[in-house]
Amino acid sequence: MKIGIIGSGNVSWHLARGLKNLTEIELCWISGRNKESLKALASSVEVNAFDFIPVDVDLILICVNDDNIQTVLNQVSPKIPVAYTSGTVSLEKLNFEGKLGVFYPLQTFTKGRQIDLEKVPFLIESNDDELRSTLTKLASMLSTNVQLMNSEDRKNIHIAAVFANNFVNHMLYLSSDLLSQKNLPFEILSPLIEETIKKAIELNPKDAQSGPARRSDTSTINMHLNELDERKKNIYDIVTKSILETYKK
Amino acid sequence: MKIGIIGSGNVSWHLARGLKNLTEIELCWISGRNKESLKALASSVEVNAFDFIPVDVDLILICVNDDNIQTVLNQVSPKIPVAYTSGTVSLEKLNFEGKLGVFYPLQTFTKGRQIDLEKVPFLIESNDDELRSTLTKLASMLSTNVQLMNSEDRKNIHIAAVFANNFVNHMLYLSSDLLSQKNLPFEILSPLIEETIKKAIELNPKDAQSGPARRSDTSTINMHLNELDERKKNIYDIVTKSILETYKK
Repeated sequence: MKIGIIGSGNVSWHLARGLKNLTEIELCWISGRNKESLKALASSVEVNAFDFIPVDVDLILICVNDDNIQTVLNQVSPKIPVAYTSGTVSLEKLNFEGKLGVFYPLQTFTKGRQIDLEKVPFLIESNDDELRSTLTKLASMLSTNVQLMNSEDRKNIHIAAVFANNFVNHMLYLSSDLLSQKNLPFEILSPLIEETIKKAIELNPKDAQSGPARRSDTSTINMHLNELDERKKNIYDIVTKSILETYKK
Repeated sequence: MKIGIIGSGNVSWHLARGLKNLTEIELCWISGRNKESLKALASSVEVNAFDFIPVDVDLILICVNDDNIQTVLNQVSPKIPVAYTSGTVSLEKLNFEGKLGVFYPLQTFTKGRQIDLEKVPFLIESNDDELRSTLTKLASMLSTNVQLMNSEDRKNIHIAAVFANNFVNHMLYLSSDLLSQKNLPFEILSPLIEETIKKAIELNPKDAQSGPARRSDTSTINMHLNELDERKKNIYDIVTKSILETYKK
């Protein structure tokens, strides 16, 4: 199977590497608007880079921002099956006359990091039986966790992922920012953070909760609020109230 | 060295097990008010349980809630060196005529979980040179990461730990709650959550941030806000604004 990729961002960076490793697949080209990142990516995986969209492939993977998917679709020949990699964008809201599908890897991708695609859940959807089957087969070459999923469920999983990844990471940022303001090292929290996640996954987050809010320890909460700058104080306050609400009797 | 522990909560549960494993230490008794948890803990580590405070030890570790430390101190003979395990309570704010110290394990403890104390940072402080040295020696038997730290730094690390543990866990709870409302499994997020933490620690949280707020993708943000219940919407909104603020140019 011959494949082309449109986009040269984080998802493209990882999928291109994954596909390059498959003997059953020929990754023919990567196309994109950002000349610099396109050139860097294409040369790093030894694939042709184009600023137009060739038509010599069996499948095109669109790895661009949600807002640009429709624009890119408008430029693709409906003769070629196409899949996009978004968690949020609903299949039925896109206009495309050809075979269209979703090929969504549920992971946080950053260029340059090594990620084991084998464990990444791939969520598949299509308006066409044959493409759905092709995408499932392709995903199964990359990962052991491939699931068919409709747009509604995929969207909800994506929102949950925003809390579990984006917001978790921002809490870690606020924590690291507070420490660096006081010239204290963030590394001291590493064992705590690792156990936090292990406990949340092995127990479940509701049973894993600890801390002053969980204990309704208002004197410690108030002492902490007094120490924080405005932005951190607002977040401390609203998250604390949400924890108290969760465990009120 | 003979040691007694006051308190039968999560910290006591883990420290008692750690101390029981040390040949240089004799854990003589555990004392506490909660008869049920005291009995369960004492019998599980095969140590005497008392509802009073014996005086036959070289060191007493107070493992009770912040609000109760002073009350317990009032009942202890000033002839016995005492240390408490709180992250927040300042040494100089406590009244005790004898030798007093801090023996703070920086970790989230839940009864019944296995925790490798060897990697847990122990933060040590004392009003007495000899006790400081004793506590440092004791902590070094349990952990490879022992640090002297004053109350001010320890308090700031504890506040940072609230963000890194308590609030991270609550974001995971909100994520799991959203999924369970939609009959979707939280487990699907496990690879994402594990990579989130790895990336934040290996890169640093500021560089690791991804997601719609990081990309200023307002259409996805607004779509997500429309899907959420009141409590999650408020948290989504304030955390998103904080992320936007962090990366504004």
